[in-house]
Amino acid sequence: MPELRKDPVLGRWIIISKERSKRPTDFLVEKFKVSGGFCPLCPGNEDKTPREVLSYPHNYSSADTPKDWQIRVVPNKFPALVIEGDLNKEGEGLYDKMNGIGAHEVIIESPRHEDDFAHLSPEDMALVFWAYKCRIEDLSKDLRFQYVMVFKNHGRAAGASLEHPHSQLIALPVLPRLIVSEIEGGLSYYNYKERCIFCDIVKQEIKNEIRVVCQNDDFITITPFAPKTPFEMWVLPKRHSSSFRGESDRSMNSLAQIFSESLQRLDSCIPNVPYNFVLHTQPLRSDKLEYFHWHFEIVPKLTSIAGFEWGSGFYINPMPPEEAAAFLRESL
Amino acid sequence: MPELRKDPVLGRWIIISKERSKRPTDFLVEKFKVSGGFCPLCPGNEDKTPREVLSYPHNYSSADTPKDWQIRVVPNKFPALVIEGDLNKEGEGLYDKMNGIGAHEVIIESPRHEDDFAHLSPEDMALVFWAYKCRIEDLSKDLRFQYVMVFKNHGRAAGASLEHPHSQLIALPVLPRLIVSEIEGGLSYYNYKERCIFCDIVKQEIKNEIRVVCQNDDFITITPFAPKTPFEMWVLPKRHSSSFRGESDRSMNSLAQIFSESLQRLDSCIPNVPYNFVLHTQPLRSDKLEYFHWHFEIVPKLTSIAGFEWGSGFYINPMPPEEAAAFLRESL
Repeated sequence: MPELRKDPVLGRWIIISKERSKRPTDFLVEKFKVSGGFCPLCPGNEDKTPREVLSYPHNYSSADTPKDWQIRVVPNKFPALVIEGDLNKEGEGLYDKMNGIGAHEVIIESPRHEDDFAHLSPEDMALVFWAYKCRIEDLSKDLRFQYVMVFKNHGRAAGASLEHPHSQLIALPVLPRLIVSEIEGGLSYYNYKERCIFCDIVKQEIKNEIRVVCQNDDFITITPFAPKTPFEMWVLPKRHSSSFRGESDRSMNSLAQIFSESLQRLDSCIPNVPYNFVLHTQPLRSDKLEYFHWHFEIVPKLTSIAGFEWGSGFYINPMPPEEAAAFLRESL
Repeated sequence: MPELRKDPVLGRWIIISKERSKRPTDFLVEKFKVSGGFCPLCPGNEDKTPREVLSYPHNYSSADTPKDWQIRVVPNKFPALVIEGDLNKEGEGLYDKMNGIGAHEVIIESPRHEDDFAHLSPEDMALVFWAYKCRIEDLSKDLRFQYVMVFKNHGRAAGASLEHPHSQLIALPVLPRLIVSEIEGGLSYYNYKERCIFCDIVKQEIKNEIRVVCQNDDFITITPFAPKTPFEMWVLPKRHSSSFRGESDRSMNSLAQIFSESLQRLDSCIPNVPYNFVLHTQPLRSDKLEYFHWHFEIVPKLTSIAGFEWGSGFYINPMPPEEAAAFLRESL
């Protein structure tokens, strides 16, 4: 018997279609082709990107004097939004629009072209998270911005156009609808229960165990109760925290440990899996929120099953999250 | 300068990234491969599908005595939901779930394997819409159901697993979140303006002309102001109507004329384009709604640009709908 499950935060129903249940090996994925050509993100080509806004080690400062670097953050050469200008909000009849003001940056996660984010050392991955935090912090000073969306496209099917390991961020003068819906859902639960729904989810998942992929003292990775896709994972802090940029250095190290383990388990289950991950955190102009909890959502892009969901917002998932979690736990 | 645009119904912002603007020829699509093998939807194989729940002409009634038919509606052999059983709503800690009770049917749109929905004659296409209406009508008698979602996956990238022209419907015991959001958005506008937002959209688009793809006395196809994807189209009735199943025979003919013209224009712009379309209509248990307007959304699946949007709900669209509409108008 298939099951209808409700996402507790968004109120969205999805179908878990057990009769169509599959094993990880049913999700065959072609390897992301090695292009072999010129890579603008590789060391030595620093002058082929816009000048960096951040780099580690910190003493790397000019494209004219390339030095060893571990991470560079550069403006996207083909930005979806531009940094210069006024918002110029205006109507067009009943419609609303504004200039596409924002920042669009590329976080180059490693100097090594062939590195894979999932297999970075926890120390190196922690530095990537630290770069996210620093860029959010810096961009928050621009009062035109309401939100910084941090995301990674891994693999061509997930939208990556460059092979060199990198993630991206987009600073926005508006709030993404999904974040607004999550905050509204969290508030609705809080008004009823006076507790954070994400904290309650974490508690229940730790107790139940069946959807836990891995955990340490600070973080937990679960397959969510009502996942959009097979092998979707959420990485959440165990204690309440609404703001990613409020996290400490120590916290980033702990996160990296769980994050890299989670991605390695995923990659081991489905080799070469394309995926997106997106950071969900509080809006820049919010005080700390009692009813929202920052987290990462890791969403594999398995096109063989992504069909009308794209157009309808309604999801049919052939992989119960309990089975996915079991596969992921057994995979390393 | 890119532009941020707000979907007037859902309140969702999208980026129109003009600097990345493309021509239709930039969206190259491989032809959906002709499998050449056995097709369970072809005439002569009626006994390979579950027994039909509807067929035209109406005198076709038994799989044991195949006759000429134009359209057959059969239960999906691998249904996402099953028709037999109780909903058995229950909690699991803070989560909510119920049995996957529902109907999942396949509408075989033509007896000819090589037919393409876009190129059916308006008369044949009208019969497909009539079949949707009759099935919604019939399924509404089952009081367990709240909504019937009618959709088509065309092309492998859009989720089609069979080449023979067909669409699908899923009767659900819950309301899809997207429909709830549209109704809420429509109500919010109505509370302020005392008018249907979709009626206002239709009026404004007719006046402005720039986003109109085609129209007749009864229906209009537009590229929406804040589209998720390049070449997204909405097909709306010009006069207010919240319920697809309230439409007349004459209305279906008029719809088919505009719908087939719209799809042919799309296919002419981007040959072999994979797409999904989804019917948005009022819930089964609603009275007629003053603030909601049924319509079809046609969403091309151009995977080259579908990346993190899948995981984030945030859309970057390189094709302004005004340019898409111009390409579509010029394409036939």
